[in-house]
Order: sequence, then C-alpha cells, then structure tokens
Amino acid sequence: MNPFDHDDDKLREECGIFGVFGAEDASALTALGLHALQHRGQEGAGIVSFDGQRFHPHRALGLVGEIFDNRAVMQRLRGNAAIGHVRYSTTGEPILRNVQPLYADFDFGGLAIANNGNLTNAHVLRQELVSRGSLFYSTTDTEVFQHMIATSAGPRLLDRMIDALRLVEGAYALAALSKRKLIGARDPLGIRPLLLGRLNQAWIIASESCALDIIGATLEREIEPGEIVIIDDDGVHSHKPFPPTRARPCVFEYIYFSRPDSLSNGASIYDARKRIGAELSRESHPTQADIVVPVPDSGVPAALGYADEAGVPFELGLIRNHYVGRTFIEPEDEIRHLGVRLKHNANIAQLKGKRVVLVDDSIVRGTTSKKIVEMVRNAGAVEVHVRISSPPTVNSCFYGIDTPEKKQLLAAQYDIEGMRQLLSADSLAFISIDGLYRALNGNNRDALAPAYCDACFTGDYPTTLTDRSAGHSQDQLSLLAELT
Amino acid sequence: MNPFDHDDDKLREECGIFGVFGAEDASALTALGLHALQHRGQEGAGIVSFDGQRFHPHRALGLVGEIFDNRAVMQRLRGNAAIGHVRYSTTGEPILRNVQPLYADFDFGGLAIANNGNLTNAHVLRQELVSRGSLFYSTTDTEVFQHMIATSAGPRLLDRMIDALRLVEGAYALAALSKRKLIGARDPLGIRPLLLGRLNQAWIIASESCALDIIGATLEREIEPGEIVIIDDDGVHSHKPFPPTRARPCVFEYIYFSRPDSLSNGASIYDARKRIGAELSRESHPTQADIVVPVPDSGVPAALGYADEAGVPFELGLIRNHYVGRTFIEPEDEIRHLGVRLKHNANIAQLKGKRVVLVDDSIVRGTTSKKIVEMVRNAGAVEVHVRISSPPTVNSCFYGIDTPEKKQLLAAQYDIEGMRQLLSADSLAFISIDGLYRALNGNNRDALAPAYCDACFTGDYPTTLTDRSAGHSQDQLSLLAELT
Amino acid sequence: MNPFDHDDDKLREECGIFGVFGAEDASALTALGLHALQHRGQEGAGIVSFDGQRFHPHRALGLVGEIFDNRAVMQRLRGNAAIGHVRYSTTGEPILRNVQPLYADFDFGGLAIANNGNLTNAHVLRQELVSRGSLFYSTTDTEVFQHMIATSAGPRLLDRMIDALRLVEGAYALAALSKRKLIGARDPLGIRPLLLGRLNQAWIIASESCALDIIGATLEREIEPGEIVIIDDDGVHSHKPFPPTRARPCVFEYIYFSRPDSLSNGASIYDARKRIGAELSRESHPTQADIVVPVPDSGVPAALGYADEAGVPFELGLIRNHYVGRTFIEPEDEIRHLGVRLKHNANIAQLKGKRVVLVDDSIVRGTTSKKIVEMVRNAGAVEVHVRISSPPTVNSCFYGIDTPEKKQLLAAQYDIEGMRQLLSADSLAFISIDGLYRALNGNNRDALAPAYCDACFTGDYPTTLTDRSAGHSQDQLSLLAELT
Amino acid sequence: MNPFDHDDDKLREECGIFGVFGAEDASALTALGLHALQHRGQEGAGIVSFDGQRFHPHRALGLVGEIFDNRAVMQRLRGNAAIGHVRYSTTGEPILRNVQPLYADFDFGGLAIANNGNLTNAHVLRQELVSRGSLFYSTTDTEVFQHMIATSAGPRLLDRMIDALRLVEGAYALAALSKRKLIGARDPLGIRPLLLGRLNQAWIIASESCALDIIGATLEREIEPGEIVIIDDDGVHSHKPFPPTRARPCVFEYIYFSRPDSLSNGASIYDARKRIGAELSRESHPTQADIVVPVPDSGVPAALGYADEAGVPFELGLIRNHYVGRTFIEPEDEIRHLGVRLKHNANIAQLKGKRVVLVDDSIVRGTTSKKIVEMVRNAGAVEVHVRISSPPTVNSCFYGIDTPEKKQLLAAQYDIEGMRQLLSADSLAFISIDGLYRALNGNNRDALAPAYCDACFTGDYPTTLTDRSAGHSQDQLSLLAELT
Repeated sequence: MNPFDHDDDKLREECGIFGVFGAEDASALTALGLHALQHRGQEGAGIVSFDGQRFHPHRALGLVGEIFDNRAVMQRLRGNAAIGHVRYSTTGEPILRNVQPLYADFDFGGLAIANNGNLTNAHVLRQELVSRGSLFYSTTDTEVFQHMIATSAGPRLLDRMIDALRLVEGAYALAALSKRKLIGARDPLGIRPLLLGRLNQAWIIASESCALDIIGATLEREIEPGEIVIIDDDGVHSHKPFPPTRARPCVFEYIYFSRPDSLSNGASIYDARKRIGAELSRESHPTQADIVVPVPDSGVPAALGYADEAGVPFELGLIRNHYVGRTFIEPEDEIRHLGVRLKHNANIAQLKGKRVVLVDDSIVRGTTSKKIVEMVRNAGAVEVHVRISSPPTVNSCFYGIDTPEKKQLLAAQYDIEGMRQLLSADSLAFISIDGLYRALNGNNRDALAPAYCDACFTGDYPTTLTDRSAGHSQDQLSLLAELT
Repeated sequence: MNPFDHDDDKLREECGIFGVFGAEDASALTALGLHALQHRGQEGAGIVSFDGQRFHPHRALGLVGEIFDNRAVMQRLRGNAAIGHVRYSTTGEPILRNVQPLYADFDFGGLAIANNGNLTNAHVLRQELVSRGSLFYSTTDTEVFQHMIATSAGPRLLDRMIDALRLVEGAYALAALSKRKLIGARDPLGIRPLLLGRLNQAWIIASESCALDIIGATLEREIEPGEIVIIDDDGVHSHKPFPPTRARPCVFEYIYFSRPDSLSNGASIYDARKRIGAELSRESHPTQADIVVPVPDSGVPAALGYADEAGVPFELGLIRNHYVGRTFIEPEDEIRHLGVRLKHNANIAQLKGKRVVLVDDSIVRGTTSKKIVEMVRNAGAVEVHVRISSPPTVNSCFYGIDTPEKKQLLAAQYDIEGMRQLLSADSLAFISIDGLYRALNGNNRDALAPAYCDACFTGDYPTTLTDRSAGHSQDQLSLLAELT
Repeated sequence: MNPFDHDDDKLREECGIFGVFGAEDASALTALGLHALQHRGQEGAGIVSFDGQRFHPHRALGLVGEIFDNRAVMQRLRGNAAIGHVRYSTTGEPILRNVQPLYADFDFGGLAIANNGNLTNAHVLRQELVSRGSLFYSTTDTEVFQHMIATSAGPRLLDRMIDALRLVEGAYALAALSKRKLIGARDPLGIRPLLLGRLNQAWIIASESCALDIIGATLEREIEPGEIVIIDDDGVHSHKPFPPTRARPCVFEYIYFSRPDSLSNGASIYDARKRIGAELSRESHPTQADIVVPVPDSGVPAALGYADEAGVPFELGLIRNHYVGRTFIEPEDEIRHLGVRLKHNANIAQLKGKRVVLVDDSIVRGTTSKKIVEMVRNAGAVEVHVRISSPPTVNSCFYGIDTPEKKQLLAAQYDIEGMRQLLSADSLAFISIDGLYRALNGNNRDALAPAYCDACFTGDYPTTLTDRSAGHSQDQLSLLAELT
Repeated sequence: MNPFDHDDDKLREECGIFGVFGAEDASALTALGLHALQHRGQEGAGIVSFDGQRFHPHRALGLVGEIFDNRAVMQRLRGNAAIGHVRYSTTGEPILRNVQPLYADFDFGGLAIANNGNLTNAHVLRQELVSRGSLFYSTTDTEVFQHMIATSAGPRLLDRMIDALRLVEGAYALAALSKRKLIGARDPLGIRPLLLGRLNQAWIIASESCALDIIGATLEREIEPGEIVIIDDDGVHSHKPFPPTRARPCVFEYIYFSRPDSLSNGASIYDARKRIGAELSRESHPTQADIVVPVPDSGVPAALGYADEAGVPFELGLIRNHYVGRTFIEPEDEIRHLGVRLKHNANIAQLKGKRVVLVDDSIVRGTTSKKIVEMVRNAGAVEVHVRISSPPTVNSCFYGIDTPEKKQLLAAQYDIEGMRQLLSADSLAFISIDGLYRALNGNNRDALAPAYCDACFTGDYPTTLTDRSAGHSQDQLSLLAELT
C-alpha cells in the first residue's frame, strides 16, 4: 500500500531519520524504527549509539533488516542513546562514505548527525569552508553542518547549531547525538517531517509516526518548523531561534512518500489519500466504467476513495509480486521486454471485457505507466481510463527528493492529450492543484500563502535557490570519483 | 495480496516447478517462471538446462532473484530446454543437497527431476532400494523417483517412469528433463497442480498460470490427474497409464497457496476467494459492524468479497511492511514482544472506535492471529470479529504441505469458543466445509465423492498412508546430519 | 622448502587423507592433519565425523585453514572418529560435488570414504555399475568404491570392501569411516603412501608423517601395500587379502611431493633429496661455478646436497614471495610479462658476476624454468647451469598425479640440447634414472624388478591401463557440465 | 626468508608505500609494488589514482593480492599516477577508516597521502587542530598531515607541506598525490626508508627496492633524510628545507624488516644479515656443535653466515608450513597447545642426536622461541644453543614499529641467564650492539653519533617524544569505538 520499491517512474524520498534517548537497547529500537522508515530510503542505513563513554557506529549499504540482522553488530552498538538513518543516494552509485549518520570528534567531544532534506546553498557553504581549511570526506549536506558547528565560535553546542542553521537554506530535518544530548531540528518551513515521541521514560525523534508504532511508542507532537529540540537527562527543551514563518510542508508526503498508516499533523495519511481519490473521482470520472483498479501498492488508498465516490466496484486487477527487491533477473536482450511483469501481473479474470479506471498516484517519466496500460489492455480490458491522484509533475525538487531533470518529466514535455496518446489510454486525468488542496484542507490553494510546498507542481519554490542561481547545481562536489 | 512470507502461523507450500522445451534462453525463462512461483517456496531454487550435449545445473539456497541475478550463472545455463524448482525445506535447517532439480547419469543418458508433492510410501520404497544397493545422497522423494527409474528394467524412459509411478503413493507433480524430452507427470488424484503452456514454438510446464503470464506464454490446459506428458521435437504426447480416478485437487490451493492471479481449471483464484468471503459473510456476519479489514496480503480477496456481500465498507486497517523478507532484526529479549509489528502495523485512524470484522484465510497455530487481534484492539477498535475463510485446520497434510504436528494446530486443541477466548476476539467464525464447497463449485460437499482433497479439515485422506502406518513418519532418513 | 604452490610447471599431487579413531576432538585433529597435508591438494577439503549416532559432514572449496577456521563448523563436526581429505581437481573448474570424503547411507548404515590415488579401470567399472542401476553424483573414483560396496553381496563390510578392491586396478590409499570402524587400505603396489599412527589411545591414518607430527602423534608403521587395516574399539586388525607383490611406491614422492620433514619407510625425505642433489653433482657438476642457487622452496634440499658435494657455496640467489597464494593480480596486457616476478625475485647482489648452478627438482612444461633462467641472467649472472634432481619427465601419470598430456611435457618434445637452448642455459643436466635409484637405495635400477613406480620417467607402468586401452582416458564421465 | 607472518613473537613493521607518476597502468604497477611490500603490512591496503580529472580510491582490509585481484576494481583505478599503501593496524581491531592512502578535497584540489612512520607529537598536534575546528575521521598520523596542509597559509602546496613538516616530530616516509604532482618526503633522520626509482619515462617512489624489481624498474637513489621530492611533468625536483642532520636509519630494517633481496644505501640486506650471522658466530660460537639450524624463514641468511663462519653444516632442521596465513584453526582448549606446530615442524631426521645451534633474528616476547626450543629438543637434539642476530630488545619503538609494551619484552624482564632458563636452552647469546655495528659498517657504535636508530636496543631515542612526555601515549584519540 506504499512506495516500497525501486521504480524509475516514481519520485524517491531521500531519507528517514530516527533517534532515541534514555532507553536500554537504544540501537535495537533505532533499527526497528529505521525498518519502519525503510520506504524512505533503501540503499544504505546506519546507526550511531553512545554508551556513556564511546560512540559506536555501524553503517552499510543495503536494507535495514540485512544490515542489523546480526547479533554481534547489535551488541556492539551499546548504549542508551542512538540515532539512525536510511538513505537513497541521489547521484551515481551508492557509496558507503555518504551513508549516515556522520560522526566526528569535536573539541567538546563527539557528535553524530543524521539528516533528511537538502540544502539549497550547500555548495556555496562547502566552498567557503574548504577555502578556510575544512576537509570534507563525503559529499553530503550533513558534513556541511558538521563543519559549520566545528568552526563556529559559539560557547555551547546549541549556540553553534543555531549559528550553523542561520546560514543554511533549504530543507532539513535532523537528529544529532552528543555525549549528553539528543537534538532534533527542523527547517523554518517544516518542509520535511519530524516528530517527537515517547516510550516510557525514553524520548524518540522520528520522520514518521509509523516508526513510533513499531516500537509501541506514543506520538507526543510534531517538532515544529524552525524548532530545535534538545533532549537530555532533564527532559525536552525547545528552542525557536528563528523568526516565525508560515509553514509549508511537502505536499508529496501526503500523496506518496509517507506510509499510509502514518499521521501528519494528527491526520491520517490513508484518509488523506482516500479523500484525494474521491476528489479525483468528482473532478474526472468517466461516464461509464465497470471497475476501479489501483496500481499496487501505492495507488490503493486513492483507488478505494475513488471507487467509493464513483460507486464503481474496486478490484485488484493488478497483482504485485512482492519478491521483487533489490535484485533482478536480467535476461538476455530478446526477453528483456518482459521486465515490467517481474513486478506486476494482470489479474486477467477481473480485467477481461471490462471498462477499467486505473488509479495511480503520480506519473514521473511515464515508463511504467505505459507498460501497465498495455498490460491491462492485453488482459482484455475494453477501455482504460488513467486517473492520477496528483497534479502533473513539471518541476524538479531541490528539497531532498530525487526528481529526474525537468526534461525527463513526462508532464514537462507533453500536454494531457499528448500524454494520453503516449500511454495509449482511452482517457487521462490528473487531480487539479485546487482539488488536491481541497482534499487536504478543505480550501483551494491560496497563491499568496500556499499551505504546502508544491513546487514540483507549481514551480513556486519557498526558499531561495542559491546554489542553482550560482550555477552550482550540476557541479561535482569532490574530485574523488563517486564509486566506493 | 498473497502468501509471500515466513509466518509461523501459515501453512507452507513446499514447492513449485517449471519447465520449458524448445526456446532459446530456456534458463532465463525458467528463472522468470520460478520468480513468479516464489510464493510456493523461498528457501532454495535450482535450474538444470540441457544444451544438446551437456546438462548444466545451478542450485542454491535463497530467493530466485538472488540466485539467478548473475550474468555468469545464466550464461552457463545454456540450452533450449530447462527445468527449475523452488523449495521449502520441511525439516531442520535448509540444506543444499535437497535443493532440486536433482540430476543423475543413467545408462540411457542424464535425467534431471523436479517435484512438487510428497509420497506417502517414500520411506518404505527408500529402504527397499537401499537394501538392494542404491545409494541416496539427499532425503528427497525426488531421489526415490530417480532410483526407481534407474533400477527399472523397462526398455524406454517412459516405461521406466510408469514402472516407478505405479509403485508410489501420495501426491506428485513433476517435471523431468532428459537429453531429448521434457516430461511432466501428475499423480492420479491431481492433488498438486500442473499446467501445460505455450510460448510460440516452445512448450511450458508450470505449477501455476502466473508463471506463464510472466513470460507472456499462453495456458494450453491443465495436465490431467494421472497423465504423463512427454514433450519432444515432435510435440506433446499424452500418456494415461493409470486407471481413471475421480480427481481430488488440494482445496487449500484455492484458499491460500496459489497466487490470486492464477487460474485453476480455468477459474480465477481471486474470484474463488471473493466468493468464499461472500459465503463466509452470509454464514457468519455479525449484526453490526463498521468496517471489514483484511489481514494483508492473503486476506484481501476474501475480505473484498465479504465486505461487498455484507454491505460494510472495506478498509485497509492493517498496513504491511513489505521489507520483511528473509532477514529479521532479533532484538534483545526485553523488546522481542515487538515481533509482530515488524510485519504489520495498525492503521489507527481507521480502527479507532470502530466495530471491526477482521478477515483472514486460516488459523494454524494462532500465534499471529492473537497478536493481530490485540494490535487492532490497541488501536482503539471497540469490537473485533474474526472471520476465517477456511474451516478449522485440524489435521496434518501428508501431500507436500508443511503442517505443524496435530498437537500444535490450534483448532485441534480448542473448540470455537475456546479459540475465541484465546484470541480475545468478540466473535470468531470459520466458513463451514459445505460453505467452502458451495463457494467453489456450487454444491455442498459429497462425503462419498468429495471434489477436493480436504484432509486437513476433514481427516479424509484420499490415499493410503503407508509410511505412517509403518510408523515411519518421524524416522530420520539418513545417518548424515541434516545441516550442510 | 616444499611444493606449496600453484605452478603450472610443477606436477600436482592430487590428494591427501587423514583419519582418526578414538579421540575427543577427532575433527579438530583431522583439520590439523589436513593442514599439514595441504601441499598435497589445495582446491578443496572435507571432513566427515561420526558421533555415535550420526555422521557430520563439511566440505568446501579452499584451503583447510579457511574452511575449518570456524567454531560453529568445528562444533558441528562432533564425535570421536573422523576422516578428512584435501584435493586437487584434475580437470576443469574445481567443483564441490567432487570434494571428499563422500558419504552414503547403506543398508548396514553410513559409510564415508576419502581416497588418494587413481584407478586405471574406473571408467569401465562405472559404466558397468550405471548399466545395472547405480546412480553417480560425482565423477570421483571414490564413488566407484561406494557403489561396488553397495552392490556387493558380501555379508560384512570387510567382505564387501575386499570384493570391491579385487576388481579395481591402479593406485589407491583410502580411509573409510563406518558407524563402528575406521578402515585404511592401500593398493597392492603401494603406489601412494599411507601410514598408521597413534596418539595416546587413538589411532591415526595419514598420507604422510608430517600429519602425525602436527598433532604430536607417533608413527607406528606404514600400512603395507595390499593391506586393509580395520580399527575399532578392540584395536587394529590387519587383513591382507591379495597375493603378495613386490611394492613399487611412487618415486616422485621422494623428489617433490612429500614434505621434506616426512619420513618414508623410516627414511627422511629431506635426506633423500640431499643425496639426490649430491649424486646430481657427481654426475654433472660443471668445471667451474661460484655459487649453487636453489629454485625455492622445493629445490632447497637438493641444492644443499649439491653444494656440499661440489664444494661450492650455497646461496639464496632467488627470494620467494610467500604471499602469492591462490589470488593473483592480473594486470593489463602490457605488463603481464611481469608475471613470474610475483613469486620469485632475484637476489641481485648474490648473482651479479657469478657463475651460477641453479638447482630445481623437475621440469614439466618448462615455462617457469625459462623465466627463472632469464631472471638470473638479467641479475648479472655470467653463466647459468641448470641442474634437475629428477630424470626427464616424458610420460603421463595415471596413478593420481596431475600431469599434462605427453605433448605438453618439455622433455617429451626436446632432447637435452634442445631444452638447454630453449631455456637459454649455459648447460643443462638431469640426474640419471640409475643415479636417482642409487641416491635412494644404493643400487642402480633393476629393470626386471624396479623398486619404485617411475613410469613418468621410464614408461614402465606397473599396472594394466584398462581405461586407456579401452580408449576411455579422455571420456567425459558425466553429462553434467563440470562447473558447480 | 623474510618476515611474512603474523607472529606474536616478532616486531611488526607498520607500513609500506609506493607511488608512480607518468606510467600507463599506474594502479596496476602500484598493486604489484604493494605486493612486493606485503611483508611490511598485511592487514589492509589501498590505492588512489588520478586520471587527469578525478581521483579514484580503493581501500580494503586484507592482502594486496586479494584486494586488487579484480578486473573491475583495477579498471576503475584509472590514470597515469597513483600512490598506494600497505598497513598493519597497531591497536585494536583492523578498521577500514584507517587504511591509507587518505584523500581529501582542498581548496587547491585533491590530495591523497600515504605514510610509513609514526609521529611522536601527533596527539598534541591533533588536539590543537580539533580545538581550531578541524574534524578528524581516522586516528592516523596521516590525517594530521592533511589538516596541517589544509590550515597552512602557504601559497603553494610545497610551502604548505614544509609548513606542516616543520611542526611534526618523529618518523615519516610519505607519498602524496595531487592533481599535478607526486610528492615524496622523508623525515630529517631518515628513520624509515624511501627510494626513488625509474621505469622508462615514469618515476617511482617506494619503501624498498624489491618493489622496483617486481615491475622491472631501476633504482635511481635513496630519497635523502629531510628531502622533499616533487615529481611532475617536468621531472624530479628536490627540496631540502630542513637543516642537515646526521641520518639515523632504523637498524631493524637490516635485521628483520626489509626483504633480503632489497638494497639499502646500495648494499644487500641479505649480505648484511650473513655478516651479522658471521659476527654472531665469532662472538658466541659454542665449542662444539653438529649443525646450524635457522628458524625459517627470517633466520636463514644469518644462519648461513653463521654456519659458514663456524664451519658447521647448515641444515633445515625446521620446516615451515607456508599455508599458515591469516586464518587459523582454533581447536578446542585441550589441543590448543599444538599451536606452534601449525607453522613449523621439526625435521626429526636432522635433529636427532645432534648438538644444534638455532639461529633466529630476534626475541620479543619469547613465546615462539620457547616452543621452538622445546620442539627441537623433542625431536631428539642433545643440545640446543640459541643464537640471536640482534641485541636484546629492551625498549619500545615510537617510530612506526608495533612493539609490545616494555613490560612484555622478554629482555626487559630477564637477564641472559634468566632468558636461557626460560627458553630451556643449553646456551643463549645475542650479538652485541658493537658487533652489530661492525657487521653493518665496520666500526663499533659511536655513542656520541650513532649511525642508526637503535633505540629498541639502547633507549637512545633520536627525537623528542612530546606525546609521551605529555602522557598521551596511551590516549584514545577518538570517542568513536575502534571496530568498524
């Protein structure tokens, strides 16, 4: 029911973070939390724990369940406090040196940081730091934070963090672990999610509430946009060093990124998706249809909402093979066109002779959508009406989501009719941006004060894009080749 | 939407088989077919191909996508004919020497065999063979077939196979590959499924139709109970050496084992499950309920049928984490009770304050069911009504399904009320055996000539159980320790 | 100081065996014994132990120290009796299914067998067995033994073994482990070595005495040619079922195969090699030379004997890099000619301006010898006189040594002068066959009753070569491709 | 013939370095060079190459032949310039993040550094750097160099390096690779070796001449103590920024560390060891002895010199099993005392009844020496006279050699007679410090101006020991736990 796959035709969330302070088995809790956040990043994961004396790291490429399924590893990750991270690599090959949390020794002791988000002035800051003698070992934004903290003259860690955060632009939601504190911080616009939870005496930081559920923790509240939360033996201390701003959380978390069983601002993601599906049905239901079929798993909630609103039966017309993981059979060329069936198979008995409404959450490149429409048609569907529960994706994201370059976005190249022809669909419709807003908060989008970051649909980026303006966005950050 | 997991509370299918004759890339097609059959066995897989000169084997523990995701391996598996196998180990540790297909050199050349099923007189036959000088290297029934063929005096391979099949009891669905032929054979009762398919000029044998779909092959027909099909350069030759018997295919294939997108006797498994769900609703719907929630993924089709029949909304009240594969985090004892949440999480927003009908396909030990009821209740459900789309499982299977010993089967220990209390459900109901038959073929069960093998529910075993009568069923077959 | 390498220009011993009966930690003792026998086979190793109830196997490709360096593996190999094997593969890729000991279940219980040697009628026997219904899973001679035992009508295991051994031709030295006995057997000519040792109450069987030394066991005696030794709780029982024959142990064991610290018939291999070197010096020392340099490590003892006899200083003019193991750097073509220096480097300071006698034990293909002469000359030697401590190798071995085909043997293609030119040596001499015999036992070779198997030098094969006569020697034994 | 093993009773060299500029296949040449230097460090190795655009790294734990035996890895390491490193870890578990070369991006571009040696003020420098905002990712001295270069205000890389080198104390021999230059530098005392070589148009930097031999390069000259050599497209530029000092190269390179086929200051290491052996014989030969036996492989050259001088036959009375690599069989406790025989075995036939002079290069803890004396005696030697070709090792090294703490050094605890009793030798003698100097350069040691660093024997450390004085030597450098 969720974005658990490597699909070139989906946007990819780049990261999930988790932290715990004050619990025995902090690392085991963190591993479980990361497992629940696995959908946010599947190429690498790491944990750093602190046992009162030393920090213990373990980072690797792979899935959480593989990396931490090892008693020796878990026993090494001692301590009552830990932070963890799951990650997508955004460019090139996955490389271990970019897997977080990053750790460094500072004059005040050690500090590990894990971050979800993307700075829009990281290149400029990094250049400045290097020119003053800082040495970078990774190409992550997180290392920029580390060096800014290291070179700040602030007396306390908190002062140094505020110093650093004042200078950065863009999206971040970070967890940091020092010898005495677990720290959470979220950018002033709250673009990426971050929550505070509790498990008995222990405090938890997590990207989504499903990571609290898995360990039986309760959701205390969202960490607010612009808030720095410091957790130590005395409890939780909140700091809000930045001027208040109207929050603009990422709207795609509602559409696709977050797990359906997560809550955002107290509201169910699953419900939101059903409402989006219902609104999509109101905006665009074809006159006649026999069944509503989701593209599994991510299209299911919207399809349920759509089917209910349209009064058309919901059927699992496509069956997904959940064994498609990170490995693939790569057959010789002559049978490579079989590719898409590795993941989905048409439930022929349901599709044959039917007028099908096919509900998916988004179209990025359009490659998978095209194959699925063809598969549904080959299974005997007489009409295929494609309905998408997001507006057309026409702009890149600079806040931590791996979007293709604009020229690879199908909706940036074709109008609706062009896309319809390309997909060979009988009809194609996207929910409108106003429809999306109405489904989420009851009102049309207020162009002067939009409630979400929706730049991928509207091009209205809520922060300056310093690196991009400076022409840096395609720069190679390091002279070191990416692989290994 | 299907049984893709290692759940102690599910029965396990032991095997799936696939064969192809007359296609370039026979091994790649076989690997794809096995991938589609992965739900039938996840602990090991193998392929043997024939290139006109030599047989090429590759067998390993693990998933198909891992084992055959290797260009070097696939290039080695040359030839236009191949057979493959996916397997569960039924006892002890998974061991490579039991992974199939098994290959041996015979006086007439080589023969590889892959089998799905279980003989009920394998021990007796094996003892006899060993006493006459045959040496066994595995503990599989398949090796019994090999030795019976080796020691038969029949002039042709077909004669020898018939010789062998005449002496065996129980369930089998096998594919064999010789230098010139691909052979498929199904036991006289047709307990395990076996299909014949076609891809252009090539012929395919497979356990389920979803394995044909993945490579774009078409389903020709079922291989009939008691039929031996021999495929060579001249086409398909059918042999029926045994007296005709009323078929009794395994009813659990409809309930749980087969993929929902497979067809059985031309009928959709998905539809069958929806009908079972509808019948279950008619037999046992509580007066009042707010939502119908499936235990994902296998409970989904029955829950859709149930909800539709009952007129109660279908909701995904439980979300499954599809990253739970073969690896697990094993936390220290104090947090081990978190186990079940690794796989499922309650969709709290849907469950809170609701009267919930929870639909699952079966209860074996009851361990998972108990945890799920508790999870649903903790999420705020005010009532939890458990509905099971199969009758109570009270007997072991001897035909190739890994059932716990009878004393571990919950329904063999408790009556319905006892189970309800144990699960802490507000009500509990199973479909009746007659209800199940009605859902499948429109009629109540005919006790004198039942249409299915339903021994796990009724104890009516359709074959003699020679090994069991001889007290062999718990014997160790080999003096060689099982591991490695 | 010993043949510890993969050198295409050396003959390869195919196997070493070890067995222990009546000792705690039997498998650990066996692993140590195999480690001492590692020079006899480096591509795979295995152990089978018996714990009173079950047999425990572990076999793998690789070195003994890698395979058994694992507490979990060693703990699994329980019991007071065990046999083990190290192996070279003689053809194609190393394959696990040929790694010994082989185990099978018989009507009398289990039996594991490990063998060093090669039968000269294995193909014919195998064909006969297959035609009568025996199924082979490996291509080893050892499996022939197993099937002959399985199909013998003899009442006791001993009777069956004698039955089997009567029918085989060629060389064997085997250890077998049943539920109650450890059995050792050596072919009537005693071609391959086999010893009986003792460690406190336990009995040991081993290919060489160095395998007794490593565990502190004492050498009792050689197992005699044609003897079957049965060890059980009552001690050692000797059986000599075959008519007495004049023994002809392999002469190459003295020249190269055995470790220098091993004893053969009570005499030191190291001493024998020194005597061979001295005899070589007497037969062929050039008028003038400054230093005697061994090709390390195997040429060292002969070079010491040579230098002493000739009164010329012994110097390590070639230094060996012992890190060259089973892995190699394979540089791009332009620097591939650097190959030989991976293993040896000239000790320039010793060689410059010197007249060098270079002592090696044998020349097979001549490839390495040629490179070493060139290396010595490049280091500044003014003369290079090559002396070989064996006669020219002109025939293949059919008794368990991996020799190239005759046409690849340098000495089968060229006379001495031709070889000298090819090696670019100033002079070249081999010890004579009579010189070799004199060095070993004081007498010239008696052509009517030679004391050793020296077929590789003389072509005088001591057994019939049935398979070769039947044209089988190049046959493929199995239709199964060799790899994996 | 050389220190190729992990023996707790040997000192361990910590590193070897290699660099090449101006050759195709620079990385393949570097891998070969590192292979020849493998005896200087066996726990990890790395290469960084530069292809004109980017730097390419590959670092791993293991042996050179394993790490770089991979076509894909080697193809990735593109470019005409490369540096490499082999390493021992000195403390705790081997950890990848300390494997060199280390790479960082600087404002002037990238710089990779590999170093052999140890700074005696690294802790103090590191603390200072951290307090000014530098972040360390490893615990190596090499990273100290990097940060000192990064924070230097010098206009050119050379200026910055001189800046850095002025502040460091201790031993270093480093290779650095920037976008345009290969740089070699050696500390003012020349404690660790560093050579300049040539291969056609390319220049080479290496720790020992055997690394030049393996690729057919010629030795140009030693890089002088205190010299910085900069190699670019214009050739070699020499800089000597420090006041001239009398060199004091490590005397243990002559005794044990360097390969015998290497040259030091134009003289043969092998010859030096023979002369040391001869001097040892003159100083301490017992009245009567039958054979001189080396402890292989490192004791062989000294034993040859000894035997020659004493006029006593040289015999290989101990045979070494070269398969003992990085893996060991760890048997259960009751047979653990067998340990030493894994590596050496007595050549009984040579030792029985003999008066044996046993020659080894050094005694560190004495554990192995004790076992070897016992082994020789058990083999039947009637007298065992131990002769050591170095003076007693009584002090720790702070210049890059892994010495046990002083209290674990046998000679720091016992006098000669005490050691003799502990080893159960009939006599024990070490070469005198003056004897050692005479063997090396003809003169006794000049206490006012010793020609070598011999602090391990004399306690005369040639540099200040700042960290030690500051009490830092046992500090943990990082709060990050060492493993992983």
